[in-house]
Amino acid sequence: MYSVEDAGRQLAAESARYAAMGWMRGTSGNLSVTLQRFPLQLAVTASGLDKGELTAQDVVVVDGAGEAVGGGKASAEAGLHARIAAVAGAGAVVHVHALAPVLAAERWPDGVPLSDLEMLKGFGRAAHDDVLTVPVVPNSQDMRELGDAFERGFRADTPALIVARHGIYVWGDDLRQARHRLECLEWLLRFALERGR
Amino acid sequence: MYSVEDAGRQLAAESARYAAMGWMRGTSGNLSVTLQRFPLQLAVTASGLDKGELTAQDVVVVDGAGEAVGGGKASAEAGLHARIAAVAGAGAVVHVHALAPVLAAERWPDGVPLSDLEMLKGFGRAAHDDVLTVPVVPNSQDMRELGDAFERGFRADTPALIVARHGIYVWGDDLRQARHRLECLEWLLRFALERGR
Amino acid sequence: MYSVEDAGRQLAAESARYAAMGWMRGTSGNLSVTLQRFPLQLAVTASGLDKGELTAQDVVVVDGAGEAVGGGKASAEAGLHARIAAVAGAGAVVHVHALAPVLAAERWPDGVPLSDLEMLKGFGRAAHDDVLTVPVVPNSQDMRELGDAFERGFRADTPALIVARHGIYVWGDDLRQARHRLECLEWLLRFALERGR
Amino acid sequence: MYSVEDAGRQLAAESARYAAMGWMRGTSGNLSVTLQRFPLQLAVTASGLDKGELTAQDVVVVDGAGEAVGGGKASAEAGLHARIAAVAGAGAVVHVHALAPVLAAERWPDGVPLSDLEMLKGFGRAAHDDVLTVPVVPNSQDMRELGDAFERGFRADTPALIVARHGIYVWGDDLRQARHRLECLEWLLRFALERGR
Repeated sequence: MYSVEDAGRQLAAESARYAAMGWMRGTSGNLSVTLQRFPLQLAVTASGLDKGELTAQDVVVVDGAGEAVGGGKASAEAGLHARIAAVAGAGAVVHVHALAPVLAAERWPDGVPLSDLEMLKGFGRAAHDDVLTVPVVPNSQDMRELGDAFERGFRADTPALIVARHGIYVWGDDLRQARHRLECLEWLLRFALERGR
Repeated sequence: MYSVEDAGRQLAAESARYAAMGWMRGTSGNLSVTLQRFPLQLAVTASGLDKGELTAQDVVVVDGAGEAVGGGKASAEAGLHARIAAVAGAGAVVHVHALAPVLAAERWPDGVPLSDLEMLKGFGRAAHDDVLTVPVVPNSQDMRELGDAFERGFRADTPALIVARHGIYVWGDDLRQARHRLECLEWLLRFALERGR
Repeated sequence: MYSVEDAGRQLAAESARYAAMGWMRGTSGNLSVTLQRFPLQLAVTASGLDKGELTAQDVVVVDGAGEAVGGGKASAEAGLHARIAAVAGAGAVVHVHALAPVLAAERWPDGVPLSDLEMLKGFGRAAHDDVLTVPVVPNSQDMRELGDAFERGFRADTPALIVARHGIYVWGDDLRQARHRLECLEWLLRFALERGR
Repeated sequence: MYSVEDAGRQLAAESARYAAMGWMRGTSGNLSVTLQRFPLQLAVTASGLDKGELTAQDVVVVDGAGEAVGGGKASAEAGLHARIAAVAGAGAVVHVHALAPVLAAERWPDGVPLSDLEMLKGFGRAAHDDVLTVPVVPNSQDMRELGDAFERGFRADTPALIVARHGIYVWGDDLRQARHRLECLEWLLRFALERGR
């Protein structure tokens, strides 16, 4: 579990890292960590700001419905962060607009199949005899609709969700694990796209 | 509105940022901000310099026709900056030579259609039930010709113009908003190009 | 030969470099240097850590079977590092998850042929009248199996091995030579892939 | 004209810049500046070193045949640098192993045609009604052969030469002008390659 202060510092640092990778262009994407489980509270990066320039204060505390507790303006997407944190028991959820996941969802709209690749281990799966299907759900501005679609396809061994024509969510115990999983999954998706050319 | 001093500092900082992204190769591209509306005056990055190494002094003040007021040498393209600032009421105009817009103009010479993509929100449009057509005009060395073509296709909800076989212009209230819009639009254009392969 | 202290510092520095290039996503990949030949001892980067953030202490000493000597947790892949160091007499072995080698192994599963390219000189081969075939072996979690496959295809003039659907190993007298060879080979593989489109 | 001290400092700085762009992988490529015209003397980056880590001392002075004057080891390619400096009257010659020029030479082995592109102005040509054909010559280890092929195709308005399956040479009055031209030409070659897909 994170304190709000720790959360703010780490969310800002990780956001800057993703921004430098080109995965948070404009003010897109948002990251969250779980502050407490009962009742659920998350710290989410503040909405509408340049993700390469966040400070430790640019953080909003939200409840299990994604509604701001105290001050600040949370992105509507905080609702999906909270849903993922609740259903998956995640300690950290990252949502970025990398290009490969969105392209992969165009090619495999019913889920992106990946198997027999060493990088699957970096995502928490086996390198052999195991098929990871990364779930793809249609985009929506209604977080309940997105959350329901996420929950229908949820599997505890698959900590990722591609929102078609939008971006990707990946989660883990903490921001570092979530990033490692995201980095490996993004590599896998680029591999799948390039291989299929 | 910017003071000349602020303008110079911010134009240099933003130019260095775009140069590092590879969008201002050589001495290509130029950025401007509106200093006053009546009569129109802009501060434009000086011509012929390395955009990664500008100082706050490497700025030229131009009038509504793009002609230098006082000293310094403005790029001919300052004329189009001024036209955009006048017609669109923009506070900042950025012109860069990113590759994706120029490739997109080859594929969609009558305008690049984009719709049903979350990133459209970062450009100021809706993610659903809305078609953005990024206008494309033929290249010219005559800024009046370019400006007329821009004005014929101008829509207040579409703060961008691709000049075919040349580069892209994006504008906004200030340099940050213009950059956020450009970053999102460039992502969208890469998506459109990659998807169509 | 390296001392353990030198090894730790250099392994951390080189790992950070590869991580910044995107070749060690997540916690993937590992680097080693030979500490002594008889009996063989290697210093290998510690397993499960972010390769962009290693310190000089994040190193494990292993024997000729890849088993940790003293403390720390070595990656199973240390076994293949040791095998390569023994068979090839390498002073340094680098294993990274660059994308191009894995894509090339899909296209040329029996070995990637490269010839008549100046960059071959940077890999230690001739630019003309010489065919480099980069060996490709199937992936496995059994380092003995991988090591046997490596040894069957080993040629002293070919300091590289692609493990299909996994990554690449390149070696040399020291970390710098191994990196120079890897950089040149990765360029060559991108050339081969792009040319074939 | 450069002094040797200036030359060393600037050659190291420019080399580091190209290395960071991925255009001098391994120890590939070399840069030179003209120290005096009669008799011709160039300062060339030293051979076999990591181009990202040169110091101002890692420079060799060569004569018009590319032979080292005084100490140090010049790359054989210094012979082509000297030939270009003599024939074109260049103040600086840069030779890098960017990928796009080598790919373009595969597609257009008799010369890469480029026209009607704004970026041509950054290379010193016109954006309209002008066809730039970037000369392509076959690779060779014999600098006289390469130099003869260069000279046969030389045009004063075309300060570039692609050596097939090898890399590119670009020149100008000084290192900065040569870099600006190279940056623009590399963009143009990527455009040509991507457009043709």
